[in-house]
Amino acid sequence: MAEQTGLKNRGYARADVEERRIAAEEFTGADLENISKYGFEPESASKNIENMIGTIQIPLGYAGPVTVNGDHAKGSILVPLATTEGALVASISRGMSVINTGGGANVMVFNDAMTRAPVLKVDDLMHSRRVMDWIDSNMDAIHAEVASTTSHGRLVEIERFPDGRNLFLRFSFSTGDAMGMNMATIASEAVCRLIERETGAVMVSVSGNMCSDKKPAAINMICGRGKTVVAEARIPKDVVESRLHATAAAITETNIRKNLVGSSMAGTLGANAHAANMVAALYIATGQDPAQVVGGSMTLTTCEDIDGDLYICVRMPAVEVGTVGGGTRLPCQREALAMMGCLGDGKAPRLAEIVAVTVLAGELSTLAAQAAGHLGKAHAALGR
Amino acid sequence: MAEQTGLKNRGYARADVEERRIAAEEFTGADLENISKYGFEPESASKNIENMIGTIQIPLGYAGPVTVNGDHAKGSILVPLATTEGALVASISRGMSVINTGGGANVMVFNDAMTRAPVLKVDDLMHSRRVMDWIDSNMDAIHAEVASTTSHGRLVEIERFPDGRNLFLRFSFSTGDAMGMNMATIASEAVCRLIERETGAVMVSVSGNMCSDKKPAAINMICGRGKTVVAEARIPKDVVESRLHATAAAITETNIRKNLVGSSMAGTLGANAHAANMVAALYIATGQDPAQVVGGSMTLTTCEDIDGDLYICVRMPAVEVGTVGGGTRLPCQREALAMMGCLGDGKAPRLAEIVAVTVLAGELSTLAAQAAGHLGKAHAALGR
Amino acid sequence: MAEQTGLKNRGYARADVEERRIAAEEFTGADLENISKYGFEPESASKNIENMIGTIQIPLGYAGPVTVNGDHAKGSILVPLATTEGALVASISRGMSVINTGGGANVMVFNDAMTRAPVLKVDDLMHSRRVMDWIDSNMDAIHAEVASTTSHGRLVEIERFPDGRNLFLRFSFSTGDAMGMNMATIASEAVCRLIERETGAVMVSVSGNMCSDKKPAAINMICGRGKTVVAEARIPKDVVESRLHATAAAITETNIRKNLVGSSMAGTLGANAHAANMVAALYIATGQDPAQVVGGSMTLTTCEDIDGDLYICVRMPAVEVGTVGGGTRLPCQREALAMMGCLGDGKAPRLAEIVAVTVLAGELSTLAAQAAGHLGKAHAALGR
Amino acid sequence: MAEQTGLKNRGYARADVEERRIAAEEFTGADLENISKYGFEPESASKNIENMIGTIQIPLGYAGPVTVNGDHAKGSILVPLATTEGALVASISRGMSVINTGGGANVMVFNDAMTRAPVLKVDDLMHSRRVMDWIDSNMDAIHAEVASTTSHGRLVEIERFPDGRNLFLRFSFSTGDAMGMNMATIASEAVCRLIERETGAVMVSVSGNMCSDKKPAAINMICGRGKTVVAEARIPKDVVESRLHATAAAITETNIRKNLVGSSMAGTLGANAHAANMVAALYIATGQDPAQVVGGSMTLTTCEDIDGDLYICVRMPAVEVGTVGGGTRLPCQREALAMMGCLGDGKAPRLAEIVAVTVLAGELSTLAAQAAGHLGKAHAALGR
Repeated sequence: MAEQTGLKNRGYARADVEERRIAAEEFTGADLENISKYGFEPESASKNIENMIGTIQIPLGYAGPVTVNGDHAKGSILVPLATTEGALVASISRGMSVINTGGGANVMVFNDAMTRAPVLKVDDLMHSRRVMDWIDSNMDAIHAEVASTTSHGRLVEIERFPDGRNLFLRFSFSTGDAMGMNMATIASEAVCRLIERETGAVMVSVSGNMCSDKKPAAINMICGRGKTVVAEARIPKDVVESRLHATAAAITETNIRKNLVGSSMAGTLGANAHAANMVAALYIATGQDPAQVVGGSMTLTTCEDIDGDLYICVRMPAVEVGTVGGGTRLPCQREALAMMGCLGDGKAPRLAEIVAVTVLAGELSTLAAQAAGHLGKAHAALGR
Repeated sequence: MAEQTGLKNRGYARADVEERRIAAEEFTGADLENISKYGFEPESASKNIENMIGTIQIPLGYAGPVTVNGDHAKGSILVPLATTEGALVASISRGMSVINTGGGANVMVFNDAMTRAPVLKVDDLMHSRRVMDWIDSNMDAIHAEVASTTSHGRLVEIERFPDGRNLFLRFSFSTGDAMGMNMATIASEAVCRLIERETGAVMVSVSGNMCSDKKPAAINMICGRGKTVVAEARIPKDVVESRLHATAAAITETNIRKNLVGSSMAGTLGANAHAANMVAALYIATGQDPAQVVGGSMTLTTCEDIDGDLYICVRMPAVEVGTVGGGTRLPCQREALAMMGCLGDGKAPRLAEIVAVTVLAGELSTLAAQAAGHLGKAHAALGR
Repeated sequence: MAEQTGLKNRGYARADVEERRIAAEEFTGADLENISKYGFEPESASKNIENMIGTIQIPLGYAGPVTVNGDHAKGSILVPLATTEGALVASISRGMSVINTGGGANVMVFNDAMTRAPVLKVDDLMHSRRVMDWIDSNMDAIHAEVASTTSHGRLVEIERFPDGRNLFLRFSFSTGDAMGMNMATIASEAVCRLIERETGAVMVSVSGNMCSDKKPAAINMICGRGKTVVAEARIPKDVVESRLHATAAAITETNIRKNLVGSSMAGTLGANAHAANMVAALYIATGQDPAQVVGGSMTLTTCEDIDGDLYICVRMPAVEVGTVGGGTRLPCQREALAMMGCLGDGKAPRLAEIVAVTVLAGELSTLAAQAAGHLGKAHAALGR
Repeated sequence: MAEQTGLKNRGYARADVEERRIAAEEFTGADLENISKYGFEPESASKNIENMIGTIQIPLGYAGPVTVNGDHAKGSILVPLATTEGALVASISRGMSVINTGGGANVMVFNDAMTRAPVLKVDDLMHSRRVMDWIDSNMDAIHAEVASTTSHGRLVEIERFPDGRNLFLRFSFSTGDAMGMNMATIASEAVCRLIERETGAVMVSVSGNMCSDKKPAAINMICGRGKTVVAEARIPKDVVESRLHATAAAITETNIRKNLVGSSMAGTLGANAHAANMVAALYIATGQDPAQVVGGSMTLTTCEDIDGDLYICVRMPAVEVGTVGGGTRLPCQREALAMMGCLGDGKAPRLAEIVAVTVLAGELSTLAAQAAGHLGKAHAALGR
């Protein structure tokens, strides 16, 4: 370790972190005192980061409790949110409070599979067909190959997208409580190596971008990735008026003009007010991958006026979450998961349901606020 | 404050945080010890969060130093990255090291404006035209209205998108070193109120989703939002071979099949390997809005083989960053900004340039790794 | 001409057409009698086709008359439609008849420019900037270059989209009554050759696909191409009920669930029921380019219930039409243009307005039919 | 019929057509002589149009013959093309001639199903789940319902997309040689009525726009609609040079910068030079629905330089064609189908293969022409 000094130190012990921090201070001239005030043993983050010099502390608050009527999440849940955007937590909490008056939010998970889509290089169309035929005829061998790489993952489907000298295979895996990207990647690569040996195709990339991970891709919006979750609530007419200072009709109109028409004119995947805000705050709190906020940003929000009550719904096609692995190993993040009863095995669908309900609450609050303002202004305009 | 007890406490003092944390522990049954180990005075986060009970600590490492040849960022820069995804920092750092061998990365900011696009409700097309005519004839009054709300912001342009009874106005503002959303929102709303008074149009939402904030929208990819930044590097042939164990041709091929063809087939806005990863890690480290990772995810990555050298480029149409306001006020985040010389006034374009160079490094490293694997397998396949 | 026999004959005279047709019959074994029954001198199509062997006859009907209140089209207009889809003409005609009861359709053209976007190859970012700087400093020379290629076209704007070693320039031209693609192409190419000479950039393609011609591209939906046209109508409550057997509320609901929500979930550019049908029928009738139906397919349709009246609107961002040049030279097509008073100079905006009104009528009729069916079924369902 | 005079005449006989044409001439003041020179009995178009007054004659040429190596289309085929765009036929023909030198084009159909996606209105998520459960448990009854409406169609799959109070069902049908829209519509509606009766859901529209017909929708690009067809060819190096005056490298480069990068930056579904041109010309010639050019416009074109040979491929996800029904009943259109051996039963896949090969030829010719120009200019630029 003698030569591993300063910025080149690659160790994971507290002393290594300290040495690197000091070297970084020297290199940059910046004082990194607050960054150095971390509260856990850095070895516990050895699978999460390299060149660690400390931590960034993100303020954590909570919204709720919110009443959730899911298949997995039931009851009154307090939702931890890590954010630096003032008013966000308060707004979500307001939405939850209003949702509770209508009996809470219903929520369901409709699909659940993590995808990886390698791109194979083939000689030509005929070769592509041979590869697909080989896959058709060898699903047992493929399942065995998957099983050799994972005990938690299970191959659900292989979709094929031939394109001349490219053959994209979109693998879907059931991945238990892990978000499942690593599992899916390893299993897909193993299958592709088998395909390479048997067919002469060459895997150019284990991700051929039809997966699609952390990119705003229509394929995820349409076919789903991770969990497809839909949450809904019905807010009684008197609550819409007394608590939201709006009407179901006004909120529905705002949703149509802004989320449906505006998003269409902007060429948007999904149609929502600010779903990514809720997703980011909850993902960061619970150790999810914050780059997968992209999947959450494709949420579709719809509203209806049902005899004066407000019906509101969010459809989230790509909630890519897990309750084991990745950032969920870290101490603060584990506590945030524990707050919602989402720590450990069998909890990933529960977490996904809570994500959708939290997004629902945030959408409701923001749309209602805009409608309330617009109502007021409409009145003022009428009064001219 | 007597009645503000437990979860209902809305205070910002350390004791309030403590009271809420204890109440949250009681409500949820979870132990929140690590969350409570925050290292700054909670009052300093009073504009960033409500219901604070502590913090989430995200491990912080660094990549680089990387040599940057920008208009604003020049020299050798160490980049702080907050992530829980193992190998990410190491991979980015490898990319930076390779970039340095070619003399560093060139980077330019091509546009710089924050947008807000209210949707107005009008009576009909004729009314819409009258509103637009009024805007044309009253730009002085509009500029004055903007000036009454902000001293840092300056209105650059109002684009109009009429659609029957909806009229979308896309305001662009120069916002100095702030990311500028609040400034843009306040100024846009003020102008809309003026328009309401003068024309009878009614602002339904200050955001009509043609802005578009935190949603994957083609309008941002095409017209830009925040800063449009392009970064490039040229890696010498011998370095591609010795350090990346690949060739420029193989990396370029991987980029075409995966990022260009695969993204097209998946219906993606942008075409990249994992830009959102780099954006998320740097945004979280520096107090940016993590939901704006969505804008960064629309990056376009291109590669070329120039006589054996590798040319690589990232085009980022929507880098929405600031060096004042929001999360940049917090202690750890300020230190991360300071590490890059990005603290305070006049530094936002510098930060944007560093974002793009960091994305460039991450893209390079991942594409090269995939190409190296593919080369090896291609050889193996040939050797069969 | 002795050796130009059979399929190789390249002549434009009637005898050449006959010789080719006979050769085609021999080659294929098909009898081409109906194809040979064309009613005009083939020389008149010499700029429209090669290897002519006859014509395809598309049935032509009319819809309307419809009352149009445009800036360019005013009064009662009979619209010729060439189609093979049964019920289409009748449906559009029904829509027009209903529109007339409300006083006709209002329609406006909001932008009018044909675009061409060459892609230039540059050395690097610095070179790209130099090229853009050169353009900024030499707009007079550029306008002169444009003027040297066309007397009808006028350069309106050059948008720049730099991306590393690619520089996309999106030229917008005012093109008079021509659809303008050829004019725009020739002028853009001339300017690019000037840029090549002065800056060393190389034009790789006069169309770099940011134009974008005949492709479903968000850039056209957002920024417009050809003419951006919006048409609207208000149908009185009693007419909605008596003639459409529906209600404004039901039609509006159908539009929301189908066109707005369904299109969003399908990842669609635009949101309409079948705009392409109307566009295709009118484009084929009037000698427009039928591949530009693609631009028309990005129409946005919105409906509102205004006190029981139905408000309906179509926004068409890319109506790429002309009244001179191309297929408008042919005899049948000229007559179809003449039917609408659209023959010749100064008539292109008028034609664009009629296109939008025709799409409006078709959208109205289809949405109303679906709503009527749905109302009936809703009643039946309620009656169970 | 006495009162059915002039424009109100709804008859299908030649005298009715004549009466209407005269009335249209009177109403519009236009002379419609050429339109009246149609060559078939108007009764034969009674299922294709209403208010017929004549025909529009579109010039018909041919490209080829081209050598096709498909599963359905084999041998040397002459392709009829109806267009008014000068140089298009010649360009396609040039592409075919070059394709022939490499042994012709390979082409395969990978999927074949026509889709219809009704949107049902349900009470809430729980109701939506009950409807989906009912479908799962009653597939036999559903198949029987389909069978009661069609003897040629067969239900392949029902995909479900729940969204709160909307439930979208995407039906896929095997439709034999018909394009199949009507069949799919009728069968889907029948199934939905059954679902309505059994579950209380209400079909709002038999097309909920997730079908998606004649709209540029990612769902069709990704999941396919009609026939998904891929065609490829390899052009020998010496032919690329001698006939196309270019190199495989230059053509590949043009394809990357223009079709892949440019289309990505423009936010395009698909990536091609002008596929819609070839699709439109062949669809109009053969009585296909010209509004379905939209599906063809989402073509992906890729090129590779294989040791100096040019490999080129087009992937067409949505070729919506038939050889019976619709416009294929008309005399000229039948002859055009007969030219390619595509008349009647069992011929639809053959037609789809020819469509893709024709698009391939057109893409090749245009890309090569641009590359040739660019090569020349590059030389000139180098010679400065």
